[in-house]
Amino acid sequence: MKIAVFGTGPAGRTVAAALASQLHSVSIGTRDPAATLARDDRGPDGDRQTFAQWHAHNAEIRLLTFEEAARDAWLVFNLTAGEAVLAALQAAGKPNLADKVLIDVSNALDFSAGFPPSLSISNTDSLAEVIQREFPETKVVKSLNTVNAALMVNPKALAGGDHTIFLSGDDAGAKEIASDLLRAFGWEDIIDLGELSNARGMEMYLPLWVRLMGTLGTANFNIKVVR
Amino acid sequence: MKIAVFGTGPAGRTVAAALASQLHSVSIGTRDPAATLARDDRGPDGDRQTFAQWHAHNAEIRLLTFEEAARDAWLVFNLTAGEAVLAALQAAGKPNLADKVLIDVSNALDFSAGFPPSLSISNTDSLAEVIQREFPETKVVKSLNTVNAALMVNPKALAGGDHTIFLSGDDAGAKEIASDLLRAFGWEDIIDLGELSNARGMEMYLPLWVRLMGTLGTANFNIKVVR
Repeated sequence: MKIAVFGTGPAGRTVAAALASQLHSVSIGTRDPAATLARDDRGPDGDRQTFAQWHAHNAEIRLLTFEEAARDAWLVFNLTAGEAVLAALQAAGKPNLADKVLIDVSNALDFSAGFPPSLSISNTDSLAEVIQREFPETKVVKSLNTVNAALMVNPKALAGGDHTIFLSGDDAGAKEIASDLLRAFGWEDIIDLGELSNARGMEMYLPLWVRLMGTLGTANFNIKVVR
Repeated sequence: MKIAVFGTGPAGRTVAAALASQLHSVSIGTRDPAATLARDDRGPDGDRQTFAQWHAHNAEIRLLTFEEAARDAWLVFNLTAGEAVLAALQAAGKPNLADKVLIDVSNALDFSAGFPPSLSISNTDSLAEVIQREFPETKVVKSLNTVNAALMVNPKALAGGDHTIFLSGDDAGAKEIASDLLRAFGWEDIIDLGELSNARGMEMYLPLWVRLMGTLGTANFNIKVVR
């Protein structure tokens, strides 16, 4: 499948590389490819690569503008940061996203007032619903926003995969395509919560996730719905 | 221990009966005991009892006003509905709650606009923090708000108890007392999230819980934090 991944950070790189390893035709979309290649965004831990270093080892993944990537793709993974989502999608352009599946993995976390973070959209609305209203011809599916990047594409690395991932969306066919991609990553316990308004609950879980990360001292955890 | 349970609904009755079975001295607080005994609040399923019928089988649990119950107790469980919490605690009276542990189990769910519910307090605040600000001399601990009444007091009834309960609060001693009560109910995986502001995450999980209940067709579920 021709897939565009929006987002050049750790999550975008991880998902793009995993999809490419499954022989999908993958591009990464960004605002300005030259600026992305010139950026030194290595993390404090020392082992994170610049985008250019990462891309040199993943040359089969094309680096394109949001517009080029969306035009070429059949499906888009949105892994941009919450505050950058709408600008990225607007740069992609409505016609280039129409009738396509958009898997929205973003979270509208707002750390501006410190810890615990708040959400810039929540409760009676969700980031996924905002996207759906802005792009009514796009088939938005919310998923994967409740785990870190490594677990998104390799759930079996934790407890053999015995934990849960959620999805929600208004288009049944789009959710089936998303479910197939989740299964290809190794997800077995996939709970379809129903229509896209249930993205509210999925996004409102994040403040608990962030605090659990602090308490547990790792992002390598997830929840299992025991029933 | 002398414990007051606020709330005469299914959750209050379940917790009060469980505490009484552990030989605590338990009272149930309500606004107007005579009105509570006269109320016919049986549910549509037919097997739920009126409060008076339930109380006839649990006569060792005293039915008192909020004020009487708080004055007599060393610890209070708040199981009133979200919109009734502050009125109940104000009726109990600040002096009667001072220096006491208050385990707040309530959720500020607002179903007025239908499904999924929103929260009347969330994101940059929580019901538990509102209570703590209103009653600064009371030691508020948030816990048990993420499971249904039956699981609160009998977690081993689901998957042998292999799932997680959270707590948060600003007073370490109060959290230790709350943890002892949780262990007595059978909880083994108890995660202390830290200060009371983390009640935000615990309360913001509820919209996901409510939708999971609908999707799974049961309230007899919980999450396990897999790490």
